[in-house]
Amino acid sequence: MQVHSPIPTLSVKSCEERQQHLVRLMEEQQLDAVLIGDPRHVHYYAAYWERPFFAPLFLMTRDGVRTLVMPFECDWPTAVDIKKNYIFNKVATMVEEQLQNSLLELSTELHNVKRLGVDFGIRPGLLPVEGIEQVDLYPAILKQRRRKYDDEIELFKRLFQTTEAAYEYVRENLKVGVTEVELYAGMMQILGNLQGEHFGFFGNDFRCGEGGGLPRYRPAESGELAVIDLGVECRGYRSDMCRTIAVDSPSAAQEEAREQVLEAIQLVESSVRPGVSCREVYENAYNSLNDYRGWSFPHHLGHGLGLSPHEAPHLNPEWDDYFEVGDLFTVEPGLYHDELKGGLRIEEVYYLGESGLEKITTIPTGY
Amino acid sequence: MQVHSPIPTLSVKSCEERQQHLVRLMEEQQLDAVLIGDPRHVHYYAAYWERPFFAPLFLMTRDGVRTLVMPFECDWPTAVDIKKNYIFNKVATMVEEQLQNSLLELSTELHNVKRLGVDFGIRPGLLPVEGIEQVDLYPAILKQRRRKYDDEIELFKRLFQTTEAAYEYVRENLKVGVTEVELYAGMMQILGNLQGEHFGFFGNDFRCGEGGGLPRYRPAESGELAVIDLGVECRGYRSDMCRTIAVDSPSAAQEEAREQVLEAIQLVESSVRPGVSCREVYENAYNSLNDYRGWSFPHHLGHGLGLSPHEAPHLNPEWDDYFEVGDLFTVEPGLYHDELKGGLRIEEVYYLGESGLEKITTIPTGY
Repeated sequence: MQVHSPIPTLSVKSCEERQQHLVRLMEEQQLDAVLIGDPRHVHYYAAYWERPFFAPLFLMTRDGVRTLVMPFECDWPTAVDIKKNYIFNKVATMVEEQLQNSLLELSTELHNVKRLGVDFGIRPGLLPVEGIEQVDLYPAILKQRRRKYDDEIELFKRLFQTTEAAYEYVRENLKVGVTEVELYAGMMQILGNLQGEHFGFFGNDFRCGEGGGLPRYRPAESGELAVIDLGVECRGYRSDMCRTIAVDSPSAAQEEAREQVLEAIQLVESSVRPGVSCREVYENAYNSLNDYRGWSFPHHLGHGLGLSPHEAPHLNPEWDDYFEVGDLFTVEPGLYHDELKGGLRIEEVYYLGESGLEKITTIPTGY
Repeated sequence: MQVHSPIPTLSVKSCEERQQHLVRLMEEQQLDAVLIGDPRHVHYYAAYWERPFFAPLFLMTRDGVRTLVMPFECDWPTAVDIKKNYIFNKVATMVEEQLQNSLLELSTELHNVKRLGVDFGIRPGLLPVEGIEQVDLYPAILKQRRRKYDDEIELFKRLFQTTEAAYEYVRENLKVGVTEVELYAGMMQILGNLQGEHFGFFGNDFRCGEGGGLPRYRPAESGELAVIDLGVECRGYRSDMCRTIAVDSPSAAQEEAREQVLEAIQLVESSVRPGVSCREVYENAYNSLNDYRGWSFPHHLGHGLGLSPHEAPHLNPEWDDYFEVGDLFTVEPGLYHDELKGGLRIEEVYYLGESGLEKITTIPTGY
């Protein structure tokens, strides 16, 4: 009987800190209310989370009153003043119009609203009050999301415990003849056991002998590397890391590539602090890796983690971000070439807190 | 090395049949174009499907021209005239504004559109042309979805092959002391192996000794029943079935409940044909089950399957549906009471085709 530590919930305290940003947005943009409908953001601001298919809503009016509309209570405290239930099923059949029914519960609250901030799209006619001007708050919320709060970091640490176990499974089970799908399915079992709940879409790269891609019914061959890049999606949040594991004994070239990639990671570790250009950090890594022995480093160096697969900060030449306190981000240099039989990527995760850079990933990087 | 049959794709022919409904809607509602943004419906009409996080769009204009905006090609034929790519990533980092970028590709096509049918909500300001009146087509599309086309039935048959394997796993592995989470995780491995791709949220009921609920780190006890109700979500479609499996030897009461439930299923099988009231079928089952020996039957008798967990037809007293050719639906009578140590539900799935009622589920119903 395998029992893992419970998944930490978002805290009322941190939610209320985050809600202050909505208060500021209402003032700045002269909004009468803010209506949050993206389930990830309902969780972020109100600590309410339920399974997919439901349509919880979080409304905050200019007077500071917070209303949650939900199908039913969740198992932990939420950061709201008023709770309402919407009709989500009848005699156990889920109604199709979850969002419509949820919005209907806000008819009174929306009655005097002229300007409404929203973070989601509402189909024409679904808002129960006519003539409300909607203002898109998604970009402003996305900006806020970059800085991770204490409760988010606690949740992420727990998610990486689960995530890392999948790699230990691959290390034990990857052998000549094992198919990529077998490994993929085996990891699901590990993740399911440790997470104990649905963990969403969990990655794109599960191949042997290639730099990435979805799993195939193809047996692993001697000499190949498997680039395994995955995360668990838990209540909207997504972990993400990568290890490269050898099917059998790594070649001298594969070992050399690994050393080069680890050097790039050390270079990043020694240079990241608030105010440093993410693009420059990318460029330094790129210069040290790309074309080394003719091998290539064709992708970003890293990205922020949170409620989307990729967020700020972007360690990427196409963005112009600078590191800030509160950043949670990946560093994932790699080297790819046919000579490496699949190539190599190592992805570590860091939190840049008040007291400096903290590494969140813990498992070894060896083959 | 376990290899399963490939998952059938939706066919261009059936997509084009389904598109005729959009043509009719444009005529009836005097629309200049229809913009489909729900990824399930892009799949339904255009046969395009990709993993989550992307924002493909399908536009059909009054002249019949069909445009698909996508991040990249999928691996099978699509039912469109023009394909466009939107910017979904830069140097491997996913851009946050998938939908905004996807919509931008339609600036020209939307230029002269005055009335636009839509099936999804668009955040204020994201449509690249101003002054377009939006008309909600979701209810009309939902109505169309009830009738299942040939390609959908083929896909469902394949999904149920995967789904049923999870039950065989439970039958082999449910023993005193096994936790619900262990079974849940083990089923994930089975489903992952047979599906070979992401299968989404897969069910709500995984408990022993209770009528339903999410899995716990709780060991199964002697005498209990496990009501296992799950499905796989594949490219938007969701299978759904239920078997009840005994931890060890079933009691006489549990056996009797099972016989009663099977009788209810036979009653349904013998009465369903086009034009029959779904509510009456529910009521007959309810009368034969509820309060039998003081046990209860508190939930619906069944529901349609498709792109939502529950669709029409509703075998439920709160709806007034009548069976139609093209219905794909579940029949799931149950009996619950402490005396049954968890209660019992059996869920079979049927397709009401031109030639009569076909049972889609195949595995035995015994404990």
